[in-house]
Amino acid sequence: MAVNLRAPEALIPIAGARWASTDAAIKKPGGDDMALLVLDEGATVAGVFTRNAFAAAPVALAKHHMACAAPRALLINSGNANAGTGREGEADAAACCARVAEELGLAADQVLPFSTGVIGEKLPMSRLDNAIPRLTRALDSHGWLAAARAIMTTDTVPKGASRRVRLEAGELTLTGIAKGSGMIRPDMATMLSFLATDAAVPAADLDLALHAAVGASFNSITVDGDTSTNDAAMLCATGAGAALDRDHPDWPVFVAALRDLMIELACAIVRDAEGATRFITLAVSGAADADEARQVAFTVAHSPLFKTAAFAGDPNWGRILAAVGRAPVADLVIDGVDIALDEVAVVAGGQPREDYREADAARVMSQPEFRVRIGLGRGEATATVWTSDLSYDYVRINAEYRS
Amino acid sequence: MAVNLRAPEALIPIAGARWASTDAAIKKPGGDDMALLVLDEGATVAGVFTRNAFAAAPVALAKHHMACAAPRALLINSGNANAGTGREGEADAAACCARVAEELGLAADQVLPFSTGVIGEKLPMSRLDNAIPRLTRALDSHGWLAAARAIMTTDTVPKGASRRVRLEAGELTLTGIAKGSGMIRPDMATMLSFLATDAAVPAADLDLALHAAVGASFNSITVDGDTSTNDAAMLCATGAGAALDRDHPDWPVFVAALRDLMIELACAIVRDAEGATRFITLAVSGAADADEARQVAFTVAHSPLFKTAAFAGDPNWGRILAAVGRAPVADLVIDGVDIALDEVAVVAGGQPREDYREADAARVMSQPEFRVRIGLGRGEATATVWTSDLSYDYVRINAEYRS
Repeated sequence: MAVNLRAPEALIPIAGARWASTDAAIKKPGGDDMALLVLDEGATVAGVFTRNAFAAAPVALAKHHMACAAPRALLINSGNANAGTGREGEADAAACCARVAEELGLAADQVLPFSTGVIGEKLPMSRLDNAIPRLTRALDSHGWLAAARAIMTTDTVPKGASRRVRLEAGELTLTGIAKGSGMIRPDMATMLSFLATDAAVPAADLDLALHAAVGASFNSITVDGDTSTNDAAMLCATGAGAALDRDHPDWPVFVAALRDLMIELACAIVRDAEGATRFITLAVSGAADADEARQVAFTVAHSPLFKTAAFAGDPNWGRILAAVGRAPVADLVIDGVDIALDEVAVVAGGQPREDYREADAARVMSQPEFRVRIGLGRGEATATVWTSDLSYDYVRINAEYRS
Repeated sequence: MAVNLRAPEALIPIAGARWASTDAAIKKPGGDDMALLVLDEGATVAGVFTRNAFAAAPVALAKHHMACAAPRALLINSGNANAGTGREGEADAAACCARVAEELGLAADQVLPFSTGVIGEKLPMSRLDNAIPRLTRALDSHGWLAAARAIMTTDTVPKGASRRVRLEAGELTLTGIAKGSGMIRPDMATMLSFLATDAAVPAADLDLALHAAVGASFNSITVDGDTSTNDAAMLCATGAGAALDRDHPDWPVFVAALRDLMIELACAIVRDAEGATRFITLAVSGAADADEARQVAFTVAHSPLFKTAAFAGDPNWGRILAAVGRAPVADLVIDGVDIALDEVAVVAGGQPREDYREADAARVMSQPEFRVRIGLGRGEATATVWTSDLSYDYVRINAEYRS
């Protein structure tokens, strides 16, 4: 199903970060569904979380714990989101943290909980309870790929990537995993990502790096416009390697490598989008500002009519034009709009080009990957957004998810 | 395919309004695809048009003509939207008006053009040209139902309704037809509607009545969130019957009857939505103001995850809660949120009710029609929005539309 996406063959371990995964019988149809990341003392952690007003119990607790203490352990379960579960859900998330803390000799607020899966069902606490000691005994710095599998829900391929960054201060390593394949849009849709580097970075600067990288990566993808109650992207710096901060001359190189890694993971989520048969890059240019460039890109990316045309490989550029026309942009003038599909120029000045041949555009749109380039002719700002098509299988997967 | 929708058996003629329809071989797979409405002298006409920035050539021309003269004829073709056709499209729309005017002895700006169908293809002018004299010779006050068929594109059922309104001034009649089944959302998505009454109403007051009625009807439906370049709803008052204006004591009764008729037509569009298997009413209450009530209703109505769950008849209320949580409403608190499916209370104070049984909710959601009631616990404002589910057939219809 996934578009040009393979599981990573190997992920580079990060000194000072160890993973364990296990099958706690939470997730149907089986497989590992719990993972634990433990960080050496002295690590720093940054996070971005869902903006959904109804954030799940673990999200609220993770944010609270991060405000209280330096995190040392991240516990993730798949198969159950612990969302819409009220006070009992909050107590369950807290009990999980306490249990991990007890096993590892930490304070409960040094443990961050994460859950993903079905909304509105209670966590099966006895199963989680039984699994936690198995996790704490199995920690291994080579556990990244197994963890990438354990956090999957409707994902068909585990997602992970690594980067080595050569800096003047020495070589640093970055490794990240992610899950998500539907309910994906900006502001942290149903996705989780866990990233770590061996750099030593002050917590405030790590937060700065994560926020700088998330806009162009996880907040620039959309599958269906739905967001989740549970999304989070976490960046850990174990401190085993070179020290870096925002004033270091190597800082921009580090942030660029982080953004590049996060774009790869974000695009992997879109490539594995529920029912996706195409991976589509929407590149908007000539906007008056970055916000309007993003608005136009997301309006096209969310258009069911564009997405079904993409599924059909049908160069129905009228649907692209109609979506651009309803984007919330003031005083947009059609005469300035150009549209190209990869290298095939389709619309110039709001009208089909004289030399446009539909067969050329059909050839582009029948590929597994293509780029829609939209010029607005209003300014210099640009935006890139990645999305997938809308297929029969999207409907099947989401109609059958709980059955 | 359509959910509890039948073609109207008869539509009441409106004195002073005559229709003709014909097959001009514009539309695949055939059938009538042109219609002409001619109004007696003295009629007034009001219209609301798409807010898409890239309004099609006929929309721009219809607005221009309405500003210049009192309309006497409305020419509609289906099968070709005459959108994204540039200067040539504008010239074609103008030529159609001139041709009708010539046949009827009118000025060209007394004719309003409307087109619906595929975007980006030139109108087949010689076919339209040949058809126009056939139309002007066949005008008949009983032509409403045939016209309702002629303006259809992917519609499976012609849509029309009539009302008789007994007023102190005498009995008035209202008849309307509509087309649309996808690319439907507020602000006049791909839909056309033509309404007429025999009342004599000043043009400014007729405009007031149409705008008062459109918010609760055509602007309260959504199929897929896409809007079109061609939408229009037109209200004609022929003046053959009693005189009415905004200061008349019967005015509110007239407006209420118009709104009621337009809601029936709007809901008919949703019932005939592309691939629809369910007709869903979203009723939001307890909002701080009407705008936030509508925002919440539309956010749920546009959620592909809610729409696929509805297709499956799956009471996955977590998806409703998650959609409410991402609605653009400031400071929404989950503790105030109640959700019911018809009479089955599901969520109270943001949590599943103790007495909730999934089987009860599944019974509601497996019906062809049901109501989702969402209470926000913030105030007194309400909104009602109608939508459909997202099915395999929605994808099929929109992936295959041009092939």
